[in-house]
Amino acid sequence: MESMSTIAPEPGYASGRARRERIVAEATKLFGRVGFHGATVLEIAAQCGISRAGLLHHFPTKESLLRAVLEERDRAELARFRENGSAARNGLGVLRGMIDLAEYNSKVSGIIELYTVLSAEASAPDHPAHDYFVDRYRRIRTGTIWALTRAKAEGLLVDGTDVTSTAIELTSLIDGLQIQWLLAPDEVDMAGQLRKRIQQLVTVPL
Amino acid sequence: MESMSTIAPEPGYASGRARRERIVAEATKLFGRVGFHGATVLEIAAQCGISRAGLLHHFPTKESLLRAVLEERDRAELARFRENGSAARNGLGVLRGMIDLAEYNSKVSGIIELYTVLSAEASAPDHPAHDYFVDRYRRIRTGTIWALTRAKAEGLLVDGTDVTSTAIELTSLIDGLQIQWLLAPDEVDMAGQLRKRIQQLVTVPL
Repeated sequence: MESMSTIAPEPGYASGRARRERIVAEATKLFGRVGFHGATVLEIAAQCGISRAGLLHHFPTKESLLRAVLEERDRAELARFRENGSAARNGLGVLRGMIDLAEYNSKVSGIIELYTVLSAEASAPDHPAHDYFVDRYRRIRTGTIWALTRAKAEGLLVDGTDVTSTAIELTSLIDGLQIQWLLAPDEVDMAGQLRKRIQQLVTVPL
Repeated sequence: MESMSTIAPEPGYASGRARRERIVAEATKLFGRVGFHGATVLEIAAQCGISRAGLLHHFPTKESLLRAVLEERDRAELARFRENGSAARNGLGVLRGMIDLAEYNSKVSGIIELYTVLSAEASAPDHPAHDYFVDRYRRIRTGTIWALTRAKAEGLLVDGTDVTSTAIELTSLIDGLQIQWLLAPDEVDMAGQLRKRIQQLVTVPL
């Protein structure tokens, strides 16, 4: 299966890393287009210009590749969120971070497709990313509740805002806007819609 | 392939219809669980207790079965919407119909899975249901804009409501709530959240 690696010179660390990154990038695109169930290791390998065995050398199963894709996205998303001052004590950094992420993701091919398709598929309890998505949404809801609670304590939310229900609303709105945007990118302004709704809840300009 | 049909007595119209209904019901479940790409005709046939050839006798391709599933859902949804007085001149029937549908769908297994998984997959332009979903969302947006415009003309919306943007917001909210609910049914009250948001926009009790 892996005969190439015994003939060819051992690839260096840098080229091995570049290969892994390429595989993760192609897997991100294919999972986002046809879902985990619809994607095959063979097709991802072909997109990378390597053999199936060559891909399995880096990621022994399709599940391990899915995990790598999601971990990579988590890292990138968290870094971007921190840049937006998500730790700010008044909670507004998190809300601004949500808008910024919607804006950013709309310009980066494949990310929204990936989350939209996988989160839908993963609602099935036997999907390999089911626990990941259950946990991801819980984390997002908890983070949003934290931000809204902080903002409320600072008097930055309109009177009567229920933080738990609003957190679920905003998280849902983001996901739903992604679907609408994927199907009608010219008619749906994801970041604009989200900014508008959040601004209705916050008493200071965002 | 279809040798059974030449040996067995020709099934009557009623039993042929029952068979078709059963196939559509099983396809609805499987498409909702693993998506169009992940589902196979063989597995749907097995769930119905018939052969692959037996299924293909009724639906010659997986695409034709997908079309039948979506047409069946459209019929059921439209009938339910009309029961809610969606034609009422002041537009409130449509808004009430949205809440009722969220409530109803949360009790009917498989429908929300189906729309959530297929609409996500179908964002890919080469998906067989791509045009269907582009058209479906355009129709839903148009219908919601119509209802909000009517309600606004009757003075039933809070001042300053932008009907187009609000229609996109509500449509997105419904889809996003479905994903959240699928992944955390005990924490997310789809119909309750939707009712709350619509009630914030409408000046009379819903």
